Amino acid sequence: MNKELLIQTHQRIKPFIHKTPVLTSQLLDDIAGCKVFFKCENFQKMGAFKMRGAANAILSLSDEERQNGVVTHSSGNFAQAVSLAAKKIGVKAYIVMPENAPLAKKNGVKTYDGEIIECESTAEAREFTANKIQKETKASFLHPSNQDEVIYGNATAAMELLQDQPDLDVILAPVGGGGLIAGTALAVHYFGNDCKVIGAEPFEVDDAYRSLQSGKIERNTTTNTVADGLRTYLGDRNFPIIQKYVDRIIRVEEEEIISAMKLIWERMKIIIEPSCAVPFAAVLREKEEFKSKKIGIILSGGNVDVSKLPF
Amino acid sequence: MNKELLIQTHQRIKPFIHKTPVLTSQLLDDIAGCKVFFKCENFQKMGAFKMRGAANAILSLSDEERQNGVVTHSSGNFAQAVSLAAKKIGVKAYIVMPENAPLAKKNGVKTYDGEIIECESTAEAREFTANKIQKETKASFLHPSNQDEVIYGNATAAMELLQDQPDLDVILAPVGGGGLIAGTALAVHYFGNDCKVIGAEPFEVDDAYRSLQSGKIERNTTTNTVADGLRTYLGDRNFPIIQKYVDRIIRVEEEEIISAMKLIWERMKIIIEPSCAVPFAAVLREKEEFKSKKIGIILSGGNVDVSKLPF
Repeated sequence: MNKELLIQTHQRIKPFIHKTPVLTSQLLDDIAGCKVFFKCENFQKMGAFKMRGAANAILSLSDEERQNGVVTHSSGNFAQAVSLAAKKIGVKAYIVMPENAPLAKKNGVKTYDGEIIECESTAEAREFTANKIQKETKASFLHPSNQDEVIYGNATAAMELLQDQPDLDVILAPVGGGGLIAGTALAVHYFGNDCKVIGAEPFEVDDAYRSLQSGKIERNTTTNTVADGLRTYLGDRNFPIIQKYVDRIIRVEEEEIISAMKLIWERMKIIIEPSCAVPFAAVLREKEEFKSKKIGIILSGGNVDVSKLPF
Repeated sequence: MNKELLIQTHQRIKPFIHKTPVLTSQLLDDIAGCKVFFKCENFQKMGAFKMRGAANAILSLSDEERQNGVVTHSSGNFAQAVSLAAKKIGVKAYIVMPENAPLAKKNGVKTYDGEIIECESTAEAREFTANKIQKETKASFLHPSNQDEVIYGNATAAMELLQDQPDLDVILAPVGGGGLIAGTALAVHYFGNDCKVIGAEPFEVDDAYRSLQSGKIERNTTTNTVADGLRTYLGDRNFPIIQKYVDRIIRVEEEEIISAMKLIWERMKIIIEPSCAVPFAAVLREKEEFKSKKIGIILSGGNVDVSKLPF
């Protein structure tokens, strides 16, 4: 890993992604007591930063590998990201989904011409089915968060943010599977100017916080959080990066997440997912730490069922 | 009225408003069958285009008039716009509101230091109270839609849109009290390049449609629409402009408004008011008319109670 590799990654995926805007709000700054720059990946293609990692992973394949397509097992944003990136690059995408996955998510994948393969709703069934597809089709398996190319692709969001605002004191990102925070940490390491990286996580699924304390990958015993994108755990590719480059992880309560989400909706007039509100909730929770600083926040995505809101 | 006056208006209010972004969406273009440029006044200061007219009206007062303050009776966006514009310009604002107005709206005015004077919840009481304040304080009365300076201020949204996209075939705006569509029509007349102006209105409150047919200002017998900003009727200052420069008015059903609003929320990840979705609903309703054209839409505002959505 080096700086040049990240620059190449950004060049590679540029034609397939949006350079998302960086928004600010005087009202939110007044509430937070600091200056916040929101990198709006909710405006990214298919509505989340996942497009960056998926595009990079597919573009990094050889011509021969591309001919055999790609496969992933995901029922969330990564499934849509792989489908759309594969479609744009001209590669076949197999998406393994539990048969009881919400219709909206299945339709999202179909919109982008991903081929859905249904399986039982267990982690084992998903892995088994993805494995089977891989063997039958020779498709390349793509992991939503624990794969180098995906992590490097994700890093480009923070790279763009630092191009816009080179003198940020801190960048915060939510921590789910670890792919976004690891990418963000790499970007800050290579392109930041005395800039810290802080992860934000719900208390309910604080596996990353505990992993940094124990030095090994911890899992969650419950997944009882409104931040449905953050229920997963770290992997062996991203954990070492997080250990090395992430300064700390702030945990927040469920009501803090909902309140931060509502504030961003009402004041900024933009739609963000609950997972996406976690870093701003962390800033509001620890105001003293951030007082008068220049803060960057990766708003990770905006795919939310607007008829089922937590407020 | 002339071109120069609109240019001066824009110069005058510039320091007090945001130049709002113009957003596009490939997905919505595919659905609509045309190219749509959304002028995002939901991102305007206080969340609506009303800031433009309010700022211009206050800035157009003489020094002596400014010392006596301004008064309006409104329980909606204009109350907040007058409060904020007055605060920024350093003028006292008296806002007459019905005593049963929602707390959220009262708080909105208080946030911007407007002084609320409560009255009974009838049109007569509101006018009587505003009149009384005017006499007692010599404050200047500002009308939300039927005042030249307010109309000229509103025109600057379409002016900016045409600066960005000079070759639009049509610009659409919602029609409530008539102040936005009249301003938009003036801007298009002076700065458009063979560009039409179309108003959009719910069938439930189609007073403007009927007014254009009968040649006199019609009122609504019911106000049963989700587009709560469009329940008012035209005035003697804006109606002649609308008669002269607006090509037609398209009426839409309630379910079309809700569905257009949901599409914009879900696909563009931005928050708009129901009233604001009416022009896009009109485009979807009459696809043939707009086929393959370049369309501008004024997204008028984003002040909505996110815990009370119509979907």
